[in-house]
Amino acid sequence: MRQPVELAKSYRLLNHGPTVLVTSAHGGKQNVMAAAWAMPLDFAPAKMLVIIDKKTATRGLIEASGEFALNIPSRAMAEATLKVGSVSGADVDKFAAVGLTTFASSQIGAPLIEGCLGWLECKVIPEPHNQQAYDMFIGEVVAAHADPRVFNGGHWQHDEGVPRSIHYIAGGSFFETGDIFEIKSER
Amino acid sequence: MRQPVELAKSYRLLNHGPTVLVTSAHGGKQNVMAAAWAMPLDFAPAKMLVIIDKKTATRGLIEASGEFALNIPSRAMAEATLKVGSVSGADVDKFAAVGLTTFASSQIGAPLIEGCLGWLECKVIPEPHNQQAYDMFIGEVVAAHADPRVFNGGHWQHDEGVPRSIHYIAGGSFFETGDIFEIKSER
Repeated sequence: MRQPVELAKSYRLLNHGPTVLVTSAHGGKQNVMAAAWAMPLDFAPAKMLVIIDKKTATRGLIEASGEFALNIPSRAMAEATLKVGSVSGADVDKFAAVGLTTFASSQIGAPLIEGCLGWLECKVIPEPHNQQAYDMFIGEVVAAHADPRVFNGGHWQHDEGVPRSIHYIAGGSFFETGDIFEIKSER
Repeated sequence: MRQPVELAKSYRLLNHGPTVLVTSAHGGKQNVMAAAWAMPLDFAPAKMLVIIDKKTATRGLIEASGEFALNIPSRAMAEATLKVGSVSGADVDKFAAVGLTTFASSQIGAPLIEGCLGWLECKVIPEPHNQQAYDMFIGEVVAAHADPRVFNGGHWQHDEGVPRSIHYIAGGSFFETGDIFEIKSER
């Protein structure tokens, strides 16, 4: 289930720091990897930042296509998230290997992953020094979508039983995203 | 309560994407601001990345001193975190205004905030283009500390009742960091 997300509010999908699945495609190949190091970089135009190691197969696909998508997995997808982070797409079709199914992006060539909570389609803003020195890729968000059960009208939903995002720590351990709370302004 | 954290494991303090308090000092002035856009950038030497808007008073202190600290607030500090994000240090002593007390860093001039879960002392790696174009500051971690009740031996602690970090969304709303879970490797 998915609905479009207004680009000016798309940063809210990543503002709380969840771990993402990075999808990419070029020349008939596609790949997916996990990234804990991804975050918003600007509101308008919305930009995202993600670290993509030189050793990954994803790196070549992003450099060749100038595009990537950030998919926000649910806790139910934590095992697949860990698996795609531990095998290389140079050797196998990781989507099939971990049982992930995809659907087409609206603006870019990278596939999006079924069952995620939100999706950000990004076009790379070329920054050769950052890419080389820091493995850092900056993308402008050209389309965003979310599962309206979890993110609707620009807001994460509070309802009991709503799927939650995940935050990788290290060594197979994650934090689940916890409860929402609001600090009331005094004025 | 605090203990040193091995620099090679200091990225784990920020890997799950918590909101941080950024502290800075220069020329007899000090300041604190909140930042949801902060994350690790490298393991060894450990580097952190944080977005600091040009309009902030913190920006001038970081540029002048070449240093900043990232402090990880607990849920009990969420109200103070929101407050320091909504007033400018150009006008008031924000530490006093929101009731935050500080202690001295070990390697840099910026103060650290009492009651936080972890602390990262950073020296800026100058990147003028990133600072100007993206408000992005990269820091090498020169010292790290954590409250051993919540992070000990390089690992976040699972115990019931342990204070939790927070993840800002927007409009005064936060997610609390939820439960830890581990995915077992099949091999």
